[in-house]
Amino acid sequence: MNIGFIGLGSMGAGMARRLIDAGHTLTVYNRTRSRAEPFQALGARVADRVHDAAASAEALITMVGDDRALEEIVFPPGDALHALPTGAVHLSMSTISVALSRRLADAHRDYHRHYLAATVLGRPDVAAAGKLFVVVAGPDDQVRRCQPIFDALGQKTFNAGKDAPAANVIKLAGNFMITTVIESLAESVALARKHGIDPHVLLDVLTGSVFSAPIYHTYGTIVVEQNFDPPGFKLPLGMKDNALVLEAARNAAVPMPMASLVRDQFVAAMAAGLAKEDWSAIARITYRNAGL
Amino acid sequence: MNIGFIGLGSMGAGMARRLIDAGHTLTVYNRTRSRAEPFQALGARVADRVHDAAASAEALITMVGDDRALEEIVFPPGDALHALPTGAVHLSMSTISVALSRRLADAHRDYHRHYLAATVLGRPDVAAAGKLFVVVAGPDDQVRRCQPIFDALGQKTFNAGKDAPAANVIKLAGNFMITTVIESLAESVALARKHGIDPHVLLDVLTGSVFSAPIYHTYGTIVVEQNFDPPGFKLPLGMKDNALVLEAARNAAVPMPMASLVRDQFVAAMAAGLAKEDWSAIARITYRNAGL
Amino acid sequence: MNIGFIGLGSMGAGMARRLIDAGHTLTVYNRTRSRAEPFQALGARVADRVHDAAASAEALITMVGDDRALEEIVFPPGDALHALPTGAVHLSMSTISVALSRRLADAHRDYHRHYLAATVLGRPDVAAAGKLFVVVAGPDDQVRRCQPIFDALGQKTFNAGKDAPAANVIKLAGNFMITTVIESLAESVALARKHGIDPHVLLDVLTGSVFSAPIYHTYGTIVVEQNFDPPGFKLPLGMKDNALVLEAARNAAVPMPMASLVRDQFVAAMAAGLAKEDWSAIARITYRNAGL
Amino acid sequence: MNIGFIGLGSMGAGMARRLIDAGHTLTVYNRTRSRAEPFQALGARVADRVHDAAASAEALITMVGDDRALEEIVFPPGDALHALPTGAVHLSMSTISVALSRRLADAHRDYHRHYLAATVLGRPDVAAAGKLFVVVAGPDDQVRRCQPIFDALGQKTFNAGKDAPAANVIKLAGNFMITTVIESLAESVALARKHGIDPHVLLDVLTGSVFSAPIYHTYGTIVVEQNFDPPGFKLPLGMKDNALVLEAARNAAVPMPMASLVRDQFVAAMAAGLAKEDWSAIARITYRNAGL
Repeated sequence: MNIGFIGLGSMGAGMARRLIDAGHTLTVYNRTRSRAEPFQALGARVADRVHDAAASAEALITMVGDDRALEEIVFPPGDALHALPTGAVHLSMSTISVALSRRLADAHRDYHRHYLAATVLGRPDVAAAGKLFVVVAGPDDQVRRCQPIFDALGQKTFNAGKDAPAANVIKLAGNFMITTVIESLAESVALARKHGIDPHVLLDVLTGSVFSAPIYHTYGTIVVEQNFDPPGFKLPLGMKDNALVLEAARNAAVPMPMASLVRDQFVAAMAAGLAKEDWSAIARITYRNAGL
Repeated sequence: MNIGFIGLGSMGAGMARRLIDAGHTLTVYNRTRSRAEPFQALGARVADRVHDAAASAEALITMVGDDRALEEIVFPPGDALHALPTGAVHLSMSTISVALSRRLADAHRDYHRHYLAATVLGRPDVAAAGKLFVVVAGPDDQVRRCQPIFDALGQKTFNAGKDAPAANVIKLAGNFMITTVIESLAESVALARKHGIDPHVLLDVLTGSVFSAPIYHTYGTIVVEQNFDPPGFKLPLGMKDNALVLEAARNAAVPMPMASLVRDQFVAAMAAGLAKEDWSAIARITYRNAGL
Repeated sequence: MNIGFIGLGSMGAGMARRLIDAGHTLTVYNRTRSRAEPFQALGARVADRVHDAAASAEALITMVGDDRALEEIVFPPGDALHALPTGAVHLSMSTISVALSRRLADAHRDYHRHYLAATVLGRPDVAAAGKLFVVVAGPDDQVRRCQPIFDALGQKTFNAGKDAPAANVIKLAGNFMITTVIESLAESVALARKHGIDPHVLLDVLTGSVFSAPIYHTYGTIVVEQNFDPPGFKLPLGMKDNALVLEAARNAAVPMPMASLVRDQFVAAMAAGLAKEDWSAIARITYRNAGL
Repeated sequence: MNIGFIGLGSMGAGMARRLIDAGHTLTVYNRTRSRAEPFQALGARVADRVHDAAASAEALITMVGDDRALEEIVFPPGDALHALPTGAVHLSMSTISVALSRRLADAHRDYHRHYLAATVLGRPDVAAAGKLFVVVAGPDDQVRRCQPIFDALGQKTFNAGKDAPAANVIKLAGNFMITTVIESLAESVALARKHGIDPHVLLDVLTGSVFSAPIYHTYGTIVVEQNFDPPGFKLPLGMKDNALVLEAARNAAVPMPMASLVRDQFVAAMAAGLAKEDWSAIARITYRNAGL
């Protein structure tokens, strides 16, 4: 497939490489061009403008940092919406607000382009290995059309229905749930440590019994060992996603007290100067409040 | 082994049966005698008093509902502490407070009896199948001595060190973590439903990706289907364990804001008349607050 | 003084009348013109456009509903910033975000116009009576210049220093504190009622002893009598101000757990369909969660 | 009146002196006898045992630190319940649990003694000045009988009805509300400080406008100046009262999320080693979490 790929950050770079390896023809674009250049050697065309990445694409993938970045790509100045050939599909894979995803779905429909929200769960190393979990939502025929893309990127694709923003809601819910895992682990570890218990023993019990999911193993180890640096997913990004889930919840009139609680932990972590650490460094706040 | 077994509730009954099946000689006692009588047919002796269950035991297992019940067994009127032969070991398997476990450890030492805290993770069907997870803490020689008991009851034994109350702390932390799973699932499901998303899809994504632990499958299904009745673990019992973890946390000066949040949900659930439902019925409060 | 006055809602209308009564010359503008017309009979000129209200003003007062409304007045399409004569002062009296107030302060400075943030505490009846509390911040000479305006509107003026956004922070803190009064009253009333105590007695004790401030009397009566309708200050407006204080707090890295808690109450109140009631109707959520 | 007075702590000592000054005949008892001896010079009889303070009393006042202390006075070993003459009245003035007050009301009725709960609002200096606020509940004839006592101790008496524990509920609600004032002030002050605003200005606005109650002035000054030492009311005592209100709320199935939030602050303050400071030192936790 002829694919335009915009956004070559730590996630996007690995994903783009997977698509090239799977035999797709890529035109890549990145705001900071130096990050795009290595892709030339891999056989991709490097675009100078958003327009050039979109103009000949059957599918345009966007994988950028936040709402604003995506708005500047799809709408002017980038204006991919107009550059995209009629009948092409835009695969919005970034973690963005539900409201923007809704606006994009409407705008693409009005301009006779196709739009899918296809969010991904997994960290950069998982992306590079093509082992992401993909959650896609949008018209069935477009989902089918893009299946080869999902197969190249992920180990499993979930179909969340015809309404594209559903994929964004699910992605945000997933990230919210990870934050509750982190905070609950931090509180349990603090409790164990202050009772003189080696937290590795606690973690062995949890992950060796009913909490056997990889997420408990991964974050349990980080939280116990306090390996918050270097970060796998930076604290301000986690805080941004927490803000997005709270916004989506408020717009739908859903109180999410656990998300509010985690929000306060993120703010305290920022106040403590932890912006360069992993988002699980909110555990430091929990430990400090316990006098550890 | 000659085992005294006190407390034949939904957990205890299954555990006692497993021990009989494994070839141990049991003397069972239950406050409501009618629950003990069926064990006669299985080859157990039925004691009329706590004293009779303890007097000839190499190991005395207690599996009762709360601190008060256990105090009345170990101290007068039950006075198992004195009835127990010198050198015998008391295996305290109930979910009790850390403070009482500490007091029991001290009392047994003063009276030259052995004491182990051996808490279990799993619901009644798991107990009946001998598939519990056992967390034991106390002197190494006593842990070794009781290994055949743990092997009969559980699929795996974790050693939490020489200080018995550690097993109680870990058990309470485990139950706390389950409550955070329930509440986080409830908030996510409310978010999905109010965005028009089938919550089964959300649950499929979660359990099919990074939340693959059985706990998410079990409680996710209950929370999505709203199968809170009949209960697997009654709400007031869950609330009691939440109170125990908050007490243990306060005594060690550990703020546990997530446990506080769950506490408020339990209280609201009691106010809503949900005392006979499963502890996961706190999800009803979350749903109601979202206008569902 | 020649005063342009934009925004004749329930607060603004009373304030504009006070200024006319005090002898000032007003040119009034309101988006919905019908609300402005009655002011003609009082001697005011009614402007058709923002520009006309600003063009001849020595002081331009804005008292509008939210950030967006104010942005559309000051910047294009309204463009009051350019319409305002050099040397004139803009008195921003609306409850707006700290970030927008900062942006306005910068823009006015760049365009050689003066800017004061002058926020007010009090409900519409208080505004109509000229008994508001005014919190002003900005350059001292401009504060002195506008003192006759403050004297006409309020019973007391507080000077919050030279940095205009300080007045906005203090206003938001004040509204936040009112929400904590409402919620704490609601929780206490629920506690009393469920113990069979007449909540009027509780309120008498509180307001007759150490909680003698008018805010406890006003909201205590509303919360006890459940007089949430008609509203004095509508719930969505209260929710908006709560969002503003949380935004200001996040931007300055200040966790405000009480504001987060109140946020969840507001969201639950919206989910319960209370958008047309007073913001103190969050008490209904507290009562419901207590089974009342 | 012949008054037995038990408990000469910082509150009780000032109260006992007021009663002597008002012409009553006192027999005083204190566990640590040295605190009682100075009262001999003021004309009081010093009792060696609880029994001696109760045996000849028309009214027995208890003003002690917690439930346990009061239980040991009323029930064996102190056994004041039996020592008290038939027809005498026990005025329970300590801050105790609602459950114990209920138990005391029942026990006194069974033994044909009278029981009033008469709780007080005010700090030691207020007690010494006879300016307390008294909240009394119990049978009307006993309230009338004790009015001279209330007049000597307080500036105002509130009658909370015939059911004695009502006075305890109201006292606990009052203390709860003070904690919300402290925490809301701390969050507002943190917000102001991090926006570069002198918190004295914020406090002036609040106390000079709608938050004019003494409680805001008193605690606002402490929180702004960080005068937490020496304490007026020690942090562990405040934490105890918070535990009592949460217990009373749970028993009546009332979620009190603000009380839960304050509880976490108290626990964090204990973890930070602030046990010897004023209960308003929870503000230190709020400041620290804001990076101040």
